[in-house]
Amino acid sequence: MPGDSMDKPNTVTCTAPVNIAVIKYWGKRNEELILPINSSLSVTLHQDQLKTTTTVATSRSFQEDRIWLNGKEEDITHPRLQSCLREIRRLARKRRNDGDPALDSMGFSHKVHICSINDFPTAAGLASSAAGFACLVYTLSRVFDVEGELSGIARQGSGSACRSMYGGFVQWIMGQKDDGKDSLAQQVAPETHWPELRVLVLVASAERKPVGSTSGMQTSVQTSRLLKHRAESVVPGRMVKMIEAVQRKDFTAFAELTMKDSNQFHATCLDTYPPIFYLSSVSQQVINLVHRYNRHYGETRVAYTFDAGPNAVIYMLQQHVPEFVQAVQHFFPPESNGGQFVKGLPVNHVALSEELRRSIGLEPLPKGISYVISTKVGPGPCVVEDPTQHLLGSDGLPKETV
Amino acid sequence: MPGDSMDKPNTVTCTAPVNIAVIKYWGKRNEELILPINSSLSVTLHQDQLKTTTTVATSRSFQEDRIWLNGKEEDITHPRLQSCLREIRRLARKRRNDGDPALDSMGFSHKVHICSINDFPTAAGLASSAAGFACLVYTLSRVFDVEGELSGIARQGSGSACRSMYGGFVQWIMGQKDDGKDSLAQQVAPETHWPELRVLVLVASAERKPVGSTSGMQTSVQTSRLLKHRAESVVPGRMVKMIEAVQRKDFTAFAELTMKDSNQFHATCLDTYPPIFYLSSVSQQVINLVHRYNRHYGETRVAYTFDAGPNAVIYMLQQHVPEFVQAVQHFFPPESNGGQFVKGLPVNHVALSEELRRSIGLEPLPKGISYVISTKVGPGPCVVEDPTQHLLGSDGLPKETV
Repeated sequence: MPGDSMDKPNTVTCTAPVNIAVIKYWGKRNEELILPINSSLSVTLHQDQLKTTTTVATSRSFQEDRIWLNGKEEDITHPRLQSCLREIRRLARKRRNDGDPALDSMGFSHKVHICSINDFPTAAGLASSAAGFACLVYTLSRVFDVEGELSGIARQGSGSACRSMYGGFVQWIMGQKDDGKDSLAQQVAPETHWPELRVLVLVASAERKPVGSTSGMQTSVQTSRLLKHRAESVVPGRMVKMIEAVQRKDFTAFAELTMKDSNQFHATCLDTYPPIFYLSSVSQQVINLVHRYNRHYGETRVAYTFDAGPNAVIYMLQQHVPEFVQAVQHFFPPESNGGQFVKGLPVNHVALSEELRRSIGLEPLPKGISYVISTKVGPGPCVVEDPTQHLLGSDGLPKETV
Repeated sequence: MPGDSMDKPNTVTCTAPVNIAVIKYWGKRNEELILPINSSLSVTLHQDQLKTTTTVATSRSFQEDRIWLNGKEEDITHPRLQSCLREIRRLARKRRNDGDPALDSMGFSHKVHICSINDFPTAAGLASSAAGFACLVYTLSRVFDVEGELSGIARQGSGSACRSMYGGFVQWIMGQKDDGKDSLAQQVAPETHWPELRVLVLVASAERKPVGSTSGMQTSVQTSRLLKHRAESVVPGRMVKMIEAVQRKDFTAFAELTMKDSNQFHATCLDTYPPIFYLSSVSQQVINLVHRYNRHYGETRVAYTFDAGPNAVIYMLQQHVPEFVQAVQHFFPPESNGGQFVKGLPVNHVALSEELRRSIGLEPLPKGISYVISTKVGPGPCVVEDPTQHLLGSDGLPKETV
């Protein structure tokens, strides 16, 4: 690689996507290796709307590993960061030891500088750690020219990060082994499989900071009888049905399973002791809105899912997006002097019929939803070829603009 | 009985209590007979604060069965009313047929007039049907001089009514038989057993009318996998532990099981499809308040439980009532021009320490709680001996004051 023998660092920049589970992961059987108590399945969102960007540089002149997240230097000794660095370096060393002499100069013994930014607001409450660790592991793998199955490494950074290593529809197979070698992500269908599927992120006005997911799921595993039953007896059947629904592009089956699984995950949070509440009154209103919208049409046109926070992620087919967005805007009237209500993919304006409004019949909740991000299914991590996009300069430090 | 041979009706008035389950009933295995999918256990509240009063009159001059509820004539053909009337008359007839000649003149073939009032506001959201059907069945049994196990009849009016047939701590044993003959209430301990136990009803400002419990539990039985697991695998063990906790007067065990079971019941509501929400943001704040209050003291001093609505019922020992009431008043500041905040048993005023306030550290929710009813454990249904208390006049019609 050029630059290796000089002081100019070897620099690579990549992006990685957010994923939103439709069969939820909640609970670990091994905290250190991040092995889950059940398999899960997610949809990878498009990076045109939501992504993490990470630059990794290596140089023999670097004195130590360093990391900057969203413009601020953070502690590189964080155990999960260390797990990812250690595993990537182990793979690189293994490759050299396996006898590829071209790898002698890869500099995997060099220190790394890492710089990462999320282009979505933290307020969006999207699990930035999944995109973040996926991006870190992918970028490290490009810098060290490591190939093969990387989702098991991303998993050790943040469980759901393993699912952000692929585009489209992705399952995280829980695996059975104690060492976690079989707990990996696998693509169920690529991002081109179901082009009509659309995604809306409804960003709820936050009432309070919820319990973090790491400690929340620990308490749930320790205290919820219903979680144990869900993991052992409910999720395996749902995984099979969800994979079938995705493969057949059966929106009704996909949507109903998605809603039921979101509700069951939040039910297990409530069965936790002390109980955990992630659904706010705004979330409850979104749930009611979706069920009444579907009831009005006598078919399941819209599905919601909620992670460890109050924001809704909505799945629906393209042709229903404009009307449903109007319904959201009607039942959650935004501030009239606020910014754009819908961000991301453009949504046509349509009128909301009086009949539908009456049929839904909810009391509007002003300012309950801050804004909507309109997006779709997207690809997995990508290399950014344009060197002007690097977040680290030729001195190996964050550029001023970061 | 005097008056039987004249037109003056034979009139009896009784009162019956509200009960609040600590192991919840949710779901029927037989809709018509009202047979539950699990056993349950409740505390009978004192009638000095909350009760139903019912007068039943019989007379050969009455043309038809009639009923007045809270001052308004209602449809006597309601199937559950008919079940109770039919079963009581069947018992009375059986007793005569079994050969007690003194019963010939009991008038059980006469028509009845029934008049019933609740002395607690409907807004309190307490299951008035339990006290109501218990009072109806008990009063009918006095009028027709029927003895023996009456909880199985009250159960056919409203499932949880069977538990209001006894004072103190009462279990409803689910039973196994198809005809429901073994699905009965049984006293676990009398009202005198645990005199230090106190009860607060926190009446939440209602946001909306929730889903009724009859249709709610039907949907839950049909759709919630977690409810099935709870009924079959969780509740049986909890019943054993709860009975032990009551018998040993072990407040910590009683309180923790009560909270866990309330949470699990609401978890199964959320696992219902479409999901049912009974806990409002006020309910969630009460839950957080209780857990933080207990955490501050490093022991479980207070327990909450919620039925099919947002109101909290709080169990605690007498000595902690004044401080906890102050905490409720602080974190739910009432309207300053409103009425009395605490009704029922008097509560001494104490100061709330700054330390406790800070330790709880919640954002106050003004007007979240309308008022508090302070009460304790109480006896089962009672006959009102004073004839001036009858709700029906000598003409068999509701008195003007009703």
